[in-house]
Amino acid sequence: MSTGTRVAGQSLPRIDAPGKVTGSAVYAADFALPGMLYGKVFRSAEPHARLVRLDTTRASAMPGVRAVISAADAADVRYGAAVKDEPVFAPDVVRYVGQPLAAVAAVTLEAAEAALAAIEAVYEPRPPVLDLAAALAPGAPLVHEGWRSYTAIPILQRDGNVCNCARIVVGDVERGWAEADHVFEHRFTTAMVHQGYTEPRAAVAVWDSSGQVTVWSNTQLPFDVQATLADILAIAPSKVRIIVPGVGGGFGGKLRIGVEHFAALLARKSGRPVKVMTTSEEELVAAYPRQGTVIELKTGVTRDGRLTARQGRIYFDTGAFAGSGPGVASVATMVLAGPYRTPNLHLEGYAVYTNKTNCGSYRAPSGPQANFAVESQMDIIADALGIDPLELRLRNIVHEGDEGPTGQVLTAVGLEECLRRAADAIGWPDRRPGPGRGKGLAIGWWTTTGGSSGVYVKINPDGSVTLNTGAVEIGTAALTGAAQVLAEALGVDLADITVISGDTSSTPFDFGAQGSRTAFAVGNACRAAAVELERKLFELAAAHLKTTEDALALRDKHVVGPGGRVSLAELARQSQVTGGGMIAHGTFIAPGTPYDTKRVEGHVYPAFHSPSFHAHAVDLSVDPETGEVTIHKYVVAQDVGFALNPTYIEGQIEGGVAQGLGQTLSEEIVYRDGRVLNANLTDYKMPTTLDVPRIESILVEHPGRVGPFGAKGVGEPPNIEPPAAVANAIAAAVGARITSLPITAEKIVLGHSRDAAGGTR
Amino acid sequence: MSTGTRVAGQSLPRIDAPGKVTGSAVYAADFALPGMLYGKVFRSAEPHARLVRLDTTRASAMPGVRAVISAADAADVRYGAAVKDEPVFAPDVVRYVGQPLAAVAAVTLEAAEAALAAIEAVYEPRPPVLDLAAALAPGAPLVHEGWRSYTAIPILQRDGNVCNCARIVVGDVERGWAEADHVFEHRFTTAMVHQGYTEPRAAVAVWDSSGQVTVWSNTQLPFDVQATLADILAIAPSKVRIIVPGVGGGFGGKLRIGVEHFAALLARKSGRPVKVMTTSEEELVAAYPRQGTVIELKTGVTRDGRLTARQGRIYFDTGAFAGSGPGVASVATMVLAGPYRTPNLHLEGYAVYTNKTNCGSYRAPSGPQANFAVESQMDIIADALGIDPLELRLRNIVHEGDEGPTGQVLTAVGLEECLRRAADAIGWPDRRPGPGRGKGLAIGWWTTTGGSSGVYVKINPDGSVTLNTGAVEIGTAALTGAAQVLAEALGVDLADITVISGDTSSTPFDFGAQGSRTAFAVGNACRAAAVELERKLFELAAAHLKTTEDALALRDKHVVGPGGRVSLAELARQSQVTGGGMIAHGTFIAPGTPYDTKRVEGHVYPAFHSPSFHAHAVDLSVDPETGEVTIHKYVVAQDVGFALNPTYIEGQIEGGVAQGLGQTLSEEIVYRDGRVLNANLTDYKMPTTLDVPRIESILVEHPGRVGPFGAKGVGEPPNIEPPAAVANAIAAAVGARITSLPITAEKIVLGHSRDAAGGTR
Repeated sequence: MSTGTRVAGQSLPRIDAPGKVTGSAVYAADFALPGMLYGKVFRSAEPHARLVRLDTTRASAMPGVRAVISAADAADVRYGAAVKDEPVFAPDVVRYVGQPLAAVAAVTLEAAEAALAAIEAVYEPRPPVLDLAAALAPGAPLVHEGWRSYTAIPILQRDGNVCNCARIVVGDVERGWAEADHVFEHRFTTAMVHQGYTEPRAAVAVWDSSGQVTVWSNTQLPFDVQATLADILAIAPSKVRIIVPGVGGGFGGKLRIGVEHFAALLARKSGRPVKVMTTSEEELVAAYPRQGTVIELKTGVTRDGRLTARQGRIYFDTGAFAGSGPGVASVATMVLAGPYRTPNLHLEGYAVYTNKTNCGSYRAPSGPQANFAVESQMDIIADALGIDPLELRLRNIVHEGDEGPTGQVLTAVGLEECLRRAADAIGWPDRRPGPGRGKGLAIGWWTTTGGSSGVYVKINPDGSVTLNTGAVEIGTAALTGAAQVLAEALGVDLADITVISGDTSSTPFDFGAQGSRTAFAVGNACRAAAVELERKLFELAAAHLKTTEDALALRDKHVVGPGGRVSLAELARQSQVTGGGMIAHGTFIAPGTPYDTKRVEGHVYPAFHSPSFHAHAVDLSVDPETGEVTIHKYVVAQDVGFALNPTYIEGQIEGGVAQGLGQTLSEEIVYRDGRVLNANLTDYKMPTTLDVPRIESILVEHPGRVGPFGAKGVGEPPNIEPPAAVANAIAAAVGARITSLPITAEKIVLGHSRDAAGGTR
Repeated sequence: MSTGTRVAGQSLPRIDAPGKVTGSAVYAADFALPGMLYGKVFRSAEPHARLVRLDTTRASAMPGVRAVISAADAADVRYGAAVKDEPVFAPDVVRYVGQPLAAVAAVTLEAAEAALAAIEAVYEPRPPVLDLAAALAPGAPLVHEGWRSYTAIPILQRDGNVCNCARIVVGDVERGWAEADHVFEHRFTTAMVHQGYTEPRAAVAVWDSSGQVTVWSNTQLPFDVQATLADILAIAPSKVRIIVPGVGGGFGGKLRIGVEHFAALLARKSGRPVKVMTTSEEELVAAYPRQGTVIELKTGVTRDGRLTARQGRIYFDTGAFAGSGPGVASVATMVLAGPYRTPNLHLEGYAVYTNKTNCGSYRAPSGPQANFAVESQMDIIADALGIDPLELRLRNIVHEGDEGPTGQVLTAVGLEECLRRAADAIGWPDRRPGPGRGKGLAIGWWTTTGGSSGVYVKINPDGSVTLNTGAVEIGTAALTGAAQVLAEALGVDLADITVISGDTSSTPFDFGAQGSRTAFAVGNACRAAAVELERKLFELAAAHLKTTEDALALRDKHVVGPGGRVSLAELARQSQVTGGGMIAHGTFIAPGTPYDTKRVEGHVYPAFHSPSFHAHAVDLSVDPETGEVTIHKYVVAQDVGFALNPTYIEGQIEGGVAQGLGQTLSEEIVYRDGRVLNANLTDYKMPTTLDVPRIESILVEHPGRVGPFGAKGVGEPPNIEPPAAVANAIAAAVGARITSLPITAEKIVLGHSRDAAGGTR
């Protein structure tokens, strides 16, 4: 907006709006093929047991049933992002309630469900590991007795029920404690929560006689699912085609293989197309939710509020399989450091097996949990020292050129501006404007995930432009942002661009819709393609306009030169006649961010690339009788580098805050004895539109060096700070310092957390 | 084979074999969507009439009918390749029996057919133009009174019922007649014939709410159909997506829009997916068959057999709309010249409107007709002069460095080798080995059609390669050939390559599967992409192998250098991690073939690019009682430049000869009073497998300068010479010189053609 751009930076309607507004967009859940069967998964009823017998004979004989599969029908492989520990079907030992044991395909959904009921499983229970404490206790039963035999990425620090311990060590915390006037120690806990995407996991698979399987899926990472599925099916990845028609929300919950393998295996066995789709119950007992955590945080500070040292341990209950846990535990240590200057750090993230569902990634994985601890404690410290929380933060935040926790040099740091503008907008310093009313602040930083993006781009003879990308649109409008970058670079309108996306065969590789990277990375790949197209356009136009290529410019769908102008449409037509068509490819990979390797161990994400900075502020009231929280205003000031499309960034902020408030106030997957008690959307309480407060978004623009026009990743950050901001405001309002998520009305009324403890020396 | 290539030149199984052999391949005719309606077309019952009234009220009210459309529902546009003269539905005047007047979509095919029967049309007949003679007669009624108002490509020479007259003039034929000792004049006729593809025209269309229509079609030219359909729908081409799942034979009959527009219009009106598929009857009355012709050929020759001059006129009965006629008439003049040195030429091709179905393109359009005349007359001349037909040809054929009829310089001319080897293989000079038995020769030349091809290529992390091309596989294995070129260039196996093709959105522009160009042009685009991939691979590998890029080579799926080797798979994986993915694009456009512009007029194809040369020889017997022809042996020697895949070139030769024999001996769409009398596959007599004789293929390789490894177009040529070769053999066998196609048993028994005449001075 401020840089003289024409398309990039404008709040243009998203390119996928019509289908989504009118309901005609086809999501994977809508996708159907003629003659398609319906698949259902039979799941373990025990958290930890030996599977003595699995009898599918009766199910196989039921009317309409066309295939029944179990462990014997899948290759004997284990899969997983960091640790290959998960089988398709439990072959012998079951490790959580909900683990797949078999699957059936039938001509109707009802017939498939009836067949499930006819499957008989006999278990011999084993002692289950039901929570972090039990898993970490000396002599705890092992969730995986054979953990040593699993293939894992070499960098991981594994030991029994711990499938990774990531560590950052900076300076010497002992010295830090010595330099501190006060040392604060607290313990925080957070609950397991589900991403709450609207569309369940869904896949339709069909095989052709060349031995290729095509799967229409709503995964966020078609290329990752392709690789995993190829392993499971024991065929080459190139024989697996994943096509993503549309994704009804993902938030990290659709990164890894979900139901694609069941659909593919059932389709192979039945010789028919098969569709598999999860129910809400399956989502809540057997998907990839956010890990519950326990966080121990110890921070030293001088009496004037300077941080001297921090020691933190965050334990992730990652469930029966490692899932995203090992990486999430790494990222967590970066969040525990906070966007603060702290000379001495000793931070550890543990991913821990238990007999629960396999946890995964959820929008800013580890962010809300770690930030909840860090930013809650900052307010506790401020109150203890008698320093205003805003002031305490201002004394410690990072600035341009500072070092991050692992030694990266921070640039384009808009943190102070975010903090001051959020505080202004919420009416700081008036923290307690009335009885039962309070305001809270929380700040944070986050990475823009790297990874490759490739694009193919062609200019069509009507002047329109087709962008092929392996990324997928998961609802964030990120591909609209990338298309805006392309339109800007080519001098065309956004409406001129059509996007083809998310097909492992027809589109180039993309690292996928994850980690706030899509608009950033695909946009940059588009810029690379545009450079090549510009070269080809100028070559043709120079001849046409009788001038040299260096005298030309792209403007308003034309190549403009001293001798006149010629439209891109005309040049594309000409190129089809004389030059093979106006096509190009472009690739992008984020440059590495240098860091100090000596500071880290077991660390999958040792630097935050093109980091974003943000501050949240909230003004709320607490009903003293019921503990009910009413949010009057919620402010987010986020340094987005460059706002590619302000409206949709605001949409990301509003959605991220809404989700964050759900995790803060009400959401929790409740386990008892290894069983989920609230596996339905009545008892698992997500906020509705009516629960979402007024949210004010302030887009701060400190352009980064790498992103298109300076843009940074924007999708995940808004989900990070709500727990801490709200907890701090509640403490301001009614004095209750709640250190466990969710902050239910009950906890507020009781004035403390059941699970938490804290203190100072 | 002979050039040290490893994949190119090998008879490897085609990449699309498994699906086609097992029947699991999905053709457009198989394609279905859930909730799909069935569309049918209501057609004119009159050859030429004013449409007084069209009443669809009753049809609209019938059970299961969801949409009825007629002229008012389509944009008021006319379309056509060379002349935009054809409306979607006849708005006022109908011009042939079978012309679309309306269409219906219903929930079943039966309901759609019932609705057709309920449509009422009232006509006011006009005098029809039923054949070439009537169309060209002075004062003939005009098929298009408003012909002057139509948009046409400017080069055409139009006049009333003549929608193009293309001309080649070389030297002075008057001088040529003067130099001749004998001048031969003959008249030949050929029948209208259908391509006989196995799969009827089929399309399924569905609209989305962004206003884009997606059409699954079996067109040979998705990008051409996209452009035409956009005009008809009055939307931008980029809002039309054509996807070609598979094509069950095309042979030129599926070049232009067929049923796609009916499907799209019905889908728009009904709001549902709609499928439209033709019946055999519709194919025979209202598709794009090969034009019937009348050919007048006058040739001067010295007594020792040197050609001094040729004057030729070929009239194409192109039907109610110009279709491919104007271009076909141009190509015909090149064929009339023959691959002979003739100093004086005056050759004309006329495309003429009549009230019949709109004729189109059929494998080597104009080739069989014009060659039938030229090569029949060569034998007549040989017999008249007492020179052996082989010898007469050898005295006149073109050689390396000669000029073509329009002045192009001929290179890689393998004609003499073809002629001698075919003659040898058939046992020449023993022309009349027994009573009722005879042998015939015919030679010809043909073009490799130009036009753009673009490809996207990526190397996947398992070392497999994905080729995206806008071309389509129409059954010739041309995309297997292109993939062999790519495999050769990248040092991988054919089995490593997956082809994604024929999708106007996800694949780059391609001029389409026509004119024997696909393996040639797409192969060359692949070579261009391979150059870019090699650069990227070498860049990565040089670092890996600690050497320089110029020390590297691609071999056996590896980059090999002095320091060792690294696999493409490894480099592709690395590129995804460090470089954005191993992708490239490539484009190709055949360089222009210089010719003498002063020699031509109204000419759409004034040069034959990378021309191929061929000789056919046949040995047959004729039953003296019945006139039945039995072919003992059929030989084709074809200069293919370089045989990319010998087996499939042999397949093209065998198929082309089989089709050619059908046109020669039995096929004819019979019109009486503007109505087709034999619109079914019982009365329209195509040869079956049992009718196809033993065919021997001799692949001659005189490598061209442009094609991959010297390859020339191979698909169309085998269809050209059968009529002349068979006619010459029949004349040798029983003395009957038949100058009209098809050469039915009846004509042979009568000993002459009903429609033809000839003579000499």
